[in-house]
Amino acid sequence: MVHLNALIHEGDNPDLTSERLKASFSTESLSETIYGGKQKLLRRREIVMYVDEHKELHDEKPVEFMTREERIENAARKVVAMRKHYYECVENEDPAETHYFQMLCTHLDGMPIGLHMGMFLPTLYTQTNDEQKEKWLAKAANLGMIGTYAQTEIGHGTNLRMLETTATFDRASDSFVLHSPTVSSTKWWPGNLGKSSNHAIVVAQLYIDKKCYGPHTFLVQLRDEETHRALPGITIGDIGPKFGINTIDNGFLRFDHFKIPRSNMMMGHSKVEADGTYVKPIHAKVGYGAMVYVRSVMTLMQGAFLAMAATIATRYSAIRRQGVINPGQGEVQVLDYQTQQHRLFPQIARAYAFYLTGKHIRDMYYDVVQNLSEGNADTLPELHAITSGLKSVVTHQVGLGIEQCRMACGGHGYSQASGIPLLYTVAIGGCTYEGENMVMLLQTARFLMRTAAAVRSGKRPATKGPSQFDYIFVAGPRQCRLGQAMTAGNCVPAMVECFEHVAKRLTLRAHERLELRKNEGRSKEDAWNDTAVDLTKASRAHTRVFIAKAFAKAVSDIADSAVSKAMTDLLHLYLSYEIVEIGTSLLEDGFMSGEQLASTQKAVYELLAKIRPNAVSLVDAFEFDDREHHSVLGRRDGHVYENLLKWAQHSELNKSDVLPAFTKYLGPMMKEARSKL
Amino acid sequence: MVHLNALIHEGDNPDLTSERLKASFSTESLSETIYGGKQKLLRRREIVMYVDEHKELHDEKPVEFMTREERIENAARKVVAMRKHYYECVENEDPAETHYFQMLCTHLDGMPIGLHMGMFLPTLYTQTNDEQKEKWLAKAANLGMIGTYAQTEIGHGTNLRMLETTATFDRASDSFVLHSPTVSSTKWWPGNLGKSSNHAIVVAQLYIDKKCYGPHTFLVQLRDEETHRALPGITIGDIGPKFGINTIDNGFLRFDHFKIPRSNMMMGHSKVEADGTYVKPIHAKVGYGAMVYVRSVMTLMQGAFLAMAATIATRYSAIRRQGVINPGQGEVQVLDYQTQQHRLFPQIARAYAFYLTGKHIRDMYYDVVQNLSEGNADTLPELHAITSGLKSVVTHQVGLGIEQCRMACGGHGYSQASGIPLLYTVAIGGCTYEGENMVMLLQTARFLMRTAAAVRSGKRPATKGPSQFDYIFVAGPRQCRLGQAMTAGNCVPAMVECFEHVAKRLTLRAHERLELRKNEGRSKEDAWNDTAVDLTKASRAHTRVFIAKAFAKAVSDIADSAVSKAMTDLLHLYLSYEIVEIGTSLLEDGFMSGEQLASTQKAVYELLAKIRPNAVSLVDAFEFDDREHHSVLGRRDGHVYENLLKWAQHSELNKSDVLPAFTKYLGPMMKEARSKL
Ligand SMILES: Cc1cc2nc3c(=O)[nH]c(=O)nc-3n(C[C@H](O)[C@H](O)[C@H](O)COP(=O)(O)OP(=O)(O)OC[C@H]3O[C@@H](n4cnc5c(N)ncnc54)[C@H](O)[C@@H]3O)c2cc1C
Ligand SMILES: Cc1cc2nc3c(=O)[nH]c(=O)nc-3n(C[C@H](O)[C@H](O)[C@H](O)COP(=O)(O)OP(=O)(O)OC[C@H]3O[C@@H](n4cnc5c(N)ncnc54)[C@H](O)[C@@H]3O)c2cc1C
Repeated sequence: MVHLNALIHEGDNPDLTSERLKASFSTESLSETIYGGKQKLLRRREIVMYVDEHKELHDEKPVEFMTREERIENAARKVVAMRKHYYECVENEDPAETHYFQMLCTHLDGMPIGLHMGMFLPTLYTQTNDEQKEKWLAKAANLGMIGTYAQTEIGHGTNLRMLETTATFDRASDSFVLHSPTVSSTKWWPGNLGKSSNHAIVVAQLYIDKKCYGPHTFLVQLRDEETHRALPGITIGDIGPKFGINTIDNGFLRFDHFKIPRSNMMMGHSKVEADGTYVKPIHAKVGYGAMVYVRSVMTLMQGAFLAMAATIATRYSAIRRQGVINPGQGEVQVLDYQTQQHRLFPQIARAYAFYLTGKHIRDMYYDVVQNLSEGNADTLPELHAITSGLKSVVTHQVGLGIEQCRMACGGHGYSQASGIPLLYTVAIGGCTYEGENMVMLLQTARFLMRTAAAVRSGKRPATKGPSQFDYIFVAGPRQCRLGQAMTAGNCVPAMVECFEHVAKRLTLRAHERLELRKNEGRSKEDAWNDTAVDLTKASRAHTRVFIAKAFAKAVSDIADSAVSKAMTDLLHLYLSYEIVEIGTSLLEDGFMSGEQLASTQKAVYELLAKIRPNAVSLVDAFEFDDREHHSVLGRRDGHVYENLLKWAQHSELNKSDVLPAFTKYLGPMMKEARSKL
Repeated sequence: MVHLNALIHEGDNPDLTSERLKASFSTESLSETIYGGKQKLLRRREIVMYVDEHKELHDEKPVEFMTREERIENAARKVVAMRKHYYECVENEDPAETHYFQMLCTHLDGMPIGLHMGMFLPTLYTQTNDEQKEKWLAKAANLGMIGTYAQTEIGHGTNLRMLETTATFDRASDSFVLHSPTVSSTKWWPGNLGKSSNHAIVVAQLYIDKKCYGPHTFLVQLRDEETHRALPGITIGDIGPKFGINTIDNGFLRFDHFKIPRSNMMMGHSKVEADGTYVKPIHAKVGYGAMVYVRSVMTLMQGAFLAMAATIATRYSAIRRQGVINPGQGEVQVLDYQTQQHRLFPQIARAYAFYLTGKHIRDMYYDVVQNLSEGNADTLPELHAITSGLKSVVTHQVGLGIEQCRMACGGHGYSQASGIPLLYTVAIGGCTYEGENMVMLLQTARFLMRTAAAVRSGKRPATKGPSQFDYIFVAGPRQCRLGQAMTAGNCVPAMVECFEHVAKRLTLRAHERLELRKNEGRSKEDAWNDTAVDLTKASRAHTRVFIAKAFAKAVSDIADSAVSKAMTDLLHLYLSYEIVEIGTSLLEDGFMSGEQLASTQKAVYELLAKIRPNAVSLVDAFEFDDREHHSVLGRRDGHVYENLLKWAQHSELNKSDVLPAFTKYLGPMMKEARSKL
């Protein structure tokens, strides 16, 4: 028999099966929407089967039980195995397939060639000249070397202009001398720098004849290729344990007057000639695009993280029976508690919102790249502004959402068996790397303030096409148009107007305050800092507009009517929930009335009940394989309790019944105490 | 020279010293307020010095670098050492001193006798009869045995009534037979159960002649006292790694028809006689008080956790220089960014609010105990309602606050060197244990709904004295009284009114909706569940009232005028920040105007600037010793960067330059790739 939910198997936990039987739509069809069509979905399943069949791609025990040394060794083993199987498993080096294959094999916590793939190779592709490409690319691409990207120092991350590592041109030897003049100049944080990499792209201040030309990038060999020992003049190591990503050897690096050939400067854009002549890059903002790309991909990945946590918690809530609602009717699935639904369903909605927005922004990125290749860089600053805000809002909400999912699992959520602790620590790092969130919001604010200035001056900038900031120029309705029947009919445009109204108002208000401070005699920069919190609020509000529209668009594009219906409920929940969250800003100027807000809140409760029967199927449609989430609670088959017991058997502490803690300390202590009774 | 800030030492990081020199009040005086007077403060310092001087109370390396096995062995070693030094270091077994001594020695992550001290001993004291006291107390108190409290099972935590472990009375052998009939009946989670304890208080369903008498407690020996091996009929072990508290061996436990003497049932309240007669306890709600006690202590502890995170992040923000505000003036301390202040100062304010509220609720607890001893149990339900809500709101806000502190440290916050990851994982567990937060909020709501019913019916219940819920009966002002001059003058009563108004309205509204659902034909229980989210909102609102009042009272009690002034700023920030946070509820019914809210928001910004010079001194006043927070970033002396480097040297990965990951896997792989170029 074919079910609407494609994940039903015989022998599954009956509570989970009965949930799945309630699906009002085909999960298969929704999965196709998520992953871009039937073909891609089938390929994902083939990759799962391939990995399933090859034992060397598996872990001998869950990584949660491994020390860092074991994790790193295990990950290195799998890198070699993955390389062996890659071409057999992945078609045409497809990036999505590659990513999926890697996720199934190495999981979330990282791998020794993460930075090599994500930063080192792309930098080599984009910042080298032809000669350098010839020399390095094939070797790097084939893993004849492993490289990382060493930018951050102990003393500087956000403010790259003040990096302290120096690269001083030595005309006599036609080389650069890399040096770490202070403790704070020590490179600190680069992934895989500590132990795995033998090369790095190093960012250092370029000095020629005592003149500083600012930060530049250099390819530096760090370790001997044969022995892997750190080269003389280089001190290198691991920075120690972190909140998460402990499989990654984030490293430190110090140079003691370490020489590299002049030709190791990345010469694709700027250049230093043998006589010390410095040649400037043609475009000032090189590399801008790469940042934007990473931040769009982050939106997608963070959406997937939240989807994973929601999958675990929703499935578990369907099999967890705790407490009684109506006496005599037995214990209920905790998914039946309104508070539980209110914890989880907004997370499901956000997971979809972010994932689908992530796909959208990736497409926008490709458009911008297309424009760039046609010599048009107009759309880049806007994309930069959007992705900066998006990265901040999404990573923040994903972090909060994952924790809600974890706590919704009660005590078992706190165990690593839930898989959520690791998920959280990996995801939350995204608030800090690739641009600290507050700093990013302030970046978005710069663009918003330029827009506000244009609005105030009445001079709309001439853009080549429609912009995501256009609504700021339009005098929308002064009153919220939401009627009583919130969940029915097409309330989406009226809801989007709410977000637009708030974003517009907060943007213009921040601009006003900024101007006010300047008129009060504060410097431009002090005024900016005095207004900074308001500025970040405007950026968040604008980002909400963007996500709301992107999510609404994605849902309206769904052809399958049953899927469309289920996803429309989720969209409504998403929008209503966000509106309640920004209630203050909507009420403050009378745009929305208390009654309208109350009925939106009511709509949230009604939507929770409406979504309840589809909840499990909505998360199922992400089709995460058990290998991906490493969660005993989130197992597809729902057989949680017996597998918790099995999982715990791996504990190193269970290797012997009696620990040295007893024989050496607690035993003698108790014995002595008893002898005195 | 004597400074207002008592923590200034020569040779400290000058940025930190110059912050401390800005103090407008005596930190010593504030510290005395926090810790209850000069004498207690001096004793704390003596304990620090004592621990400093005794090497066996120290760790050989930071616990962050230890495996679980090492941590547990290390903690066991320290338990023995602490026992040896206890009477020399701690005066008169004073509980606060004991706790502090233990914190300095074992830090946050737990110790093998944590449950013994916190649950096992107290249960022995309160639930045994005289004969049992005679038999067990001295032995337990002197650590002749180590016990834990085994209540939660895989299948049941919140709903204790459905625990599945059985204790069946066997008349023939005058014993109980303990049995775990299902997988889900496996005891799971009890701290120190896995490896450290040889005894446990076990909660099991009491069966006599096939009749079930509900859950009762039994003292069960689990392991042989000499060999420490699990006794026949008992399966026991560690449940595996968790988000935090990995020094604790939370355990699992299964019984296979395991016999214990009848006299091992805790007979202080209920009893089973030799012929199988069951004797009921006199009071139905025994143990209620203990729960309330733990939750009040939790408020204090969670306040301290947040204070610790705020200490780390605020000190670090004073020495971290990143970015320029005004060109040409060099890099600023990140503490100068408004966004940074907005991240941190509300956390400082909340830390004080929670800590001081914790002290207040502990005093209330002692009042209730006093009342109880006089045969008056009237105040217990109210205290239960308050502590349930308090526990939920405080743990939740502390979790969020700690993460804000962590992220405010940028990249270094993500390293275990910051100390904040561990702090977070330990603190956040509090959202789940001692009553899951949602469940606790719904408990508070029960009391609120009873109050609302009384308001509606016009029948105020006859209480013996003033109640924390009285304001619900009073028709406060219909309009918020906050004027323009928010930070000046005494705006506190007007601000407290805001919280009262919201709590009252949300309580009565939830009650209305509850009644409405019932009138619509829903069962009482379904109606409750349909209204559950609104109920939790009412509980949170009431809790805010309680904290606001307690904090305001504590500040108004401060005699030292300089301290009072600084703390009043913090109180104002606390209140204004919370008001902005609940803006929606204040605007919704027109109680507050948009302008009033805007000026409250403005007050927040002004207070940030006002608090800025005192920020470091405000956290300094908690006088956390470096041993307590384990944080390189939060060091008193501010020498962060060089100590980050030193800290990282401990990494196991740095023991050798080249890892097996290279020799076994990555090396051969790269070599092969190079050979094909
Ligand atoms: C998990 C992880 C992986 C990483 N991987 C790498 C890697 O592979 N390679 C690499 O080179 N680096 C890496 N990093 C470092 C990372 O890029 C930086 O930590 C990040 O950019 C933040 O910079 P910071 O640490 O200097 O934070 P800081 O700038 O010191 O932030 C501290 C606080 O100051 C505030 N602040 C700073 N500047 C401003 C401003 N102008 N306005 C307002 N507020 C401000 C911030 O908001 C924050 O609250 C990694 C970091 C992490 C956590
Ligand atoms: C760090 C830690 C230490 C612990 N130490 C001990 C120990 O020493 N000894 C011991 O015996 N136990 C211990 N526990 C177990 C702990 O007491 C339970 O996990 C806790 O009481 C929560 O119960 P649960 O796991 O059954 O959660 P569940 O009740 O399963 O919670 C799951 C979800 O269901 C919801 N839910 C459940 N009931 C209701 C309801 N009636 N209404 C609305 N929603 C509901 C919850 O809100 C939650 O979102 C520990 C747990 C942790 C995390």
